[in-house]
Amino acid sequence: MLQQFKVHEEDAVRVDAEALRHMVSAILEKVGVPPEDAALGADCLVAADLRGVDSHGVSNMLRYYVTGYTSGQINPRPQWSVVRETPATATVDCDGGLGIIIGPKAMEIAIHKAENTGLGMVTMNNGRHMGMASYHAMLALKHDMVGVCMTAVGAGVLPTFGREPRLGTNPIAVAVPAGKEPPFVLDIATSVVAANKLGIARRLGATIPGGYVADMDGTPIMEPGPLPDQYLVLPFGSTREMGSHKGYGLACVVEILCGILSGGGYAFMPEGGGSAGAIRGFAGRGGARHMVAAYSIEAFTDVAEFKATMDEWLQGLKATPPAPGHERVLVPGQPEHEAEQERRARGIPLHKEVIGWFQDISRELAIPYLL
Amino acid sequence: MLQQFKVHEEDAVRVDAEALRHMVSAILEKVGVPPEDAALGADCLVAADLRGVDSHGVSNMLRYYVTGYTSGQINPRPQWSVVRETPATATVDCDGGLGIIIGPKAMEIAIHKAENTGLGMVTMNNGRHMGMASYHAMLALKHDMVGVCMTAVGAGVLPTFGREPRLGTNPIAVAVPAGKEPPFVLDIATSVVAANKLGIARRLGATIPGGYVADMDGTPIMEPGPLPDQYLVLPFGSTREMGSHKGYGLACVVEILCGILSGGGYAFMPEGGGSAGAIRGFAGRGGARHMVAAYSIEAFTDVAEFKATMDEWLQGLKATPPAPGHERVLVPGQPEHEAEQERRARGIPLHKEVIGWFQDISRELAIPYLL
Repeated sequence: MLQQFKVHEEDAVRVDAEALRHMVSAILEKVGVPPEDAALGADCLVAADLRGVDSHGVSNMLRYYVTGYTSGQINPRPQWSVVRETPATATVDCDGGLGIIIGPKAMEIAIHKAENTGLGMVTMNNGRHMGMASYHAMLALKHDMVGVCMTAVGAGVLPTFGREPRLGTNPIAVAVPAGKEPPFVLDIATSVVAANKLGIARRLGATIPGGYVADMDGTPIMEPGPLPDQYLVLPFGSTREMGSHKGYGLACVVEILCGILSGGGYAFMPEGGGSAGAIRGFAGRGGARHMVAAYSIEAFTDVAEFKATMDEWLQGLKATPPAPGHERVLVPGQPEHEAEQERRARGIPLHKEVIGWFQDISRELAIPYLL
Repeated sequence: MLQQFKVHEEDAVRVDAEALRHMVSAILEKVGVPPEDAALGADCLVAADLRGVDSHGVSNMLRYYVTGYTSGQINPRPQWSVVRETPATATVDCDGGLGIIIGPKAMEIAIHKAENTGLGMVTMNNGRHMGMASYHAMLALKHDMVGVCMTAVGAGVLPTFGREPRLGTNPIAVAVPAGKEPPFVLDIATSVVAANKLGIARRLGATIPGGYVADMDGTPIMEPGPLPDQYLVLPFGSTREMGSHKGYGLACVVEILCGILSGGGYAFMPEGGGSAGAIRGFAGRGGARHMVAAYSIEAFTDVAEFKATMDEWLQGLKATPPAPGHERVLVPGQPEHEAEQERRARGIPLHKEVIGWFQDISRELAIPYLL
């Protein structure tokens, strides 16, 4: 995440992760979520804050979730179900439940299947926001498995050469255990930048680099500047010459594996038309579609040797001599791991404005203010 | 693929795909490959030429393979074997065999496993070059499965902020069947550009865009120009600001799934050191490591509905209004499909210099010249 999108220390209040988790859980309960589910959702949200992924933490997402629950767009007590199943796979109908809560349950299914067959993959239709995708992928780590999570959301990103959005920011997350080293954790939007981060950039008045967004006619804006009032988000790669067909293509893969493979449709699906009759009513536009997977390491190779090699390799990557102007080479998940160390010790920095929202909502919902 | 990297029509001779396949097969047999394997390898190579992926076709790869076979770097009669197996997974020791020949055999295993469990994944250590990765992924299509292929090669690409290469160009290919539409086929290097394409750019004297390569100290060269004599290849995304940590991270995922998960080590592994004792002798540096996977569509959703939705979605993507200066929006695999239609009809354009090589080698190996 770009530093410029982070809250400045002088605008921040440091709060304890445990207190934040309790408060988030209490808020979710008040909007109708059962206590066990509320705790699950709070853990996913606060994990994002701990890891420095503010775009997917409480300040950026909780208000949106509360609005979704109170407006009926998110189902607080979903009767989610497995609608199709094989030894290594399952398809889940989320019944409008929030991904940060149903994701861990789907991942449990994937892990259980991987224990039996070596692999597990669960696609999820009729879902809602998945939060930080790597949270779900990381659930595989303690089982000595590789975890994968993808999520397909509403159309907000241009295809290469296009002037109308057709794909979501569709992130891909992969988590891999190591031995002594922190786990490898990749979590990337297939757009140049996550939509949530542009929201934060606007709130903080940050300058965005060239190549992040396009004019409303689809022409990439290649000069840095403030976020325009109206813009279209570019796929990762920005322009065809720089490889935007790759970002566009990866977004398509996420759309296929999460949306079309789950029977959950696609982002720009017309509400009423098309041939895919059974999937109407929870078209891509209305909800999010997801995929989680687990790969058992033991199924492929010796786990101890795998972890030793991961350590050796991660250390080797970190030891790469840096190019001029750079201090060090990082590995995926390292900045987030370092943020977590710091935030566990010093607390999570929340913008004063977010603190104000927590104060207001604690009065409104009559729950104790804990921060 | 960038048009500027293609052979110019005036320098080209059009040859028939079938004739080329026979000649390539005969050449592979002459360097020791059994006839059935030679036919398999020839099909993979010529498929790349047919699809317009010249970087992975005969002109760029066959000489390299012939040299590899005659120097002993590639084993013409590998005793490849499954060294570990579960219901959904297998690990294959390629015994130094060429990926374009063993890849299809590994994919057959993955498909068979997916028929039984819903998913199949095969990692491959001690391998050699995989050719066009999408060739292997596309083998899943006729089984109504999603096909995946990744391959991890020698260290030639910088990690973000680094000045020494640590990762290969590590491509990712995903093939997905549609109904009436041509299949969705994504095949992308996780570097800005495939190493083979830079080789072609040098041969053709092409100008390369800024952001493709770095100086020898790791500083990205952001201005277009001829390929420098010495350069380092950048990960997809070019710079951190534009998202090179994503290309770097995806290259890492390929390294993990192909190399470390197969017990085949990693690209910059020291020949003699490290803790991963059992894997020495076929370290990343010496060979390539691969992964192929198949996902049964039937395991997740109704196949007919899936294909109808794929058609609808692909048509919708192609119907996206184009941005100024662009004629149309393409879908992944469409340029290659169009190239194949044209080349099946008019022949494969080979550079005169490549034709000369075929004439020379036909004399040298005493095989009929067929082109």
